Amino acid sequence: MTSDKGLLIVLSGPSGVGKGTVRKEIFDDPATTFEYSISMTTRDRREGEVDGVDYFFKSKEEFERLIEEDKFIEHANYVGNYYGTPVDYVVETMEKGYDVFLEIEVEGAKQVREKFPEALFIFLAPPNLTQLEERLVGRGTDSPEVIKKRISEAKRELKLMNLYDYVVINDDVRAAKNRVQCIVEASHMKRARVESKLRKTLLEVNN
Amino acid sequence: MTSDKGLLIVLSGPSGVGKGTVRKEIFDDPATTFEYSISMTTRDRREGEVDGVDYFFKSKEEFERLIEEDKFIEHANYVGNYYGTPVDYVVETMEKGYDVFLEIEVEGAKQVREKFPEALFIFLAPPNLTQLEERLVGRGTDSPEVIKKRISEAKRELKLMNLYDYVVINDDVRAAKNRVQCIVEASHMKRARVESKLRKTLLEVNN
Repeated sequence: MTSDKGLLIVLSGPSGVGKGTVRKEIFDDPATTFEYSISMTTRDRREGEVDGVDYFFKSKEEFERLIEEDKFIEHANYVGNYYGTPVDYVVETMEKGYDVFLEIEVEGAKQVREKFPEALFIFLAPPNLTQLEERLVGRGTDSPEVIKKRISEAKRELKLMNLYDYVVINDDVRAAKNRVQCIVEASHMKRARVESKLRKTLLEVNN
Repeated sequence: MTSDKGLLIVLSGPSGVGKGTVRKEIFDDPATTFEYSISMTTRDRREGEVDGVDYFFKSKEEFERLIEEDKFIEHANYVGNYYGTPVDYVVETMEKGYDVFLEIEVEGAKQVREKFPEALFIFLAPPNLTQLEERLVGRGTDSPEVIKKRISEAKRELKLMNLYDYVVINDDVRAAKNRVQCIVEASHMKRARVESKLRKTLLEVNN
C-alpha cells in the first residue's frame, strides 16, 4: 500500500442494520473527505430515493448485460434483486489519491475482499436482533414474509463478521458516523502507510 | 487479546517533539477514557511540574535500587538521567479492564515492545526538524550543547519509526490529541477484539 493511492473503504453488515442511514449521515457531514461510489440495483426505488444519488436504478436486463461485460467489482442477487458496484469509478478515484467508500451487502463485500484484500472492511452491527427486526418492520417497505426472510438472512450474515477489520455498533446514527470517520482517519495514520513519505520529509530537510 | 483486558497505549517519539504537551492535552480532556501511568525519573523537575503528577522524581540511588528489584516495564538512561515505568500499576490497571497510557522515550518503547508486543505503539513526529529545534531552544531548559545532542538523538530516533503501529504528526497539539484518541477508539473497534463478545450478544438474544 503506498501513501499516494486512496483507501477503499467498505461498509457492510446485515440487512436492516441501517447501512444506508449511516452512509447518508457520513456524506451529509462536510468534514467527510472520502468519495461515495454509487451502487447499481434492480430493486424498486423507495420513497425519497433518487436515481444517480442513492443508487443507479437499472432493469434486470441492463444489469445482466453489465455483469457479462465484467463491469462490476462485486454484484449479488439479494432477495430477488441485483446489487452491484461499477468498477471504473472506484479504480479511477483511488488512482487519483482519493478514498472511495462503498456501502454494500455482505455477499458483495466478500467479493471485494478477494479483489482488494488491502481494503478497509467495516462491519455495521445492530446493538441486538430485536432492534433489527423493529427497523425492518418500521421501514414499512417489506411484507411480513420478506421481513422473516431478512431476519433469517441477518443471522447468517452476522456470522460473516470474521471477514472484517472493524466492527461498528449502530446504536446511534451520529455515533456510528463518527466511529466510521475515526476508523478511516486512524487508517491514514498507519505507520506502513506514511513512513516512507515522512522519513523523506523529516530527514532530508535541515540535514 | 481478549476484549475484557485494557489496552496498553504507548506514545513515544523523538526528544522535543512535544510528547508531554500532547499527553497533558489528552488528560485535560474529560472525554479521555484511559489511565495515565506516571513515569519515574531522576532528571530535575522543570518549572510547573509536580511530583506524583508529571513524574515521580527520584534520586539516582533510589532508581537504581528499583531497577535491581525488577520494578520497571522499561527504563532508560537518557542524556544522563534515568526514566522508567513502574510495572505494578500498569499490569493491575489493564487487568481491571482499563486502558493504560504511557508517554515514554523511544528507547523505553523498544523495551515495552518486547514485553507487550500487542500494545498500541504511537509515534509522535514533528512536522519538520526545524520546528523540533525551535521547540528545544524555546523551552529554555537546555544548554546549546544539550540541544545539539538532542537534535542528533532525534534524528537517530526518527529512524525507529518502523517499530510503531501509527504515526501522529504534532503540527497542532489539539489535532494531535484528537488523532491519538481516534487511534485508541478505532483499536477498540477492531474485529478481533470485539467479535466473540458481540456474537454472543447478537446470536443468543432473540434466537
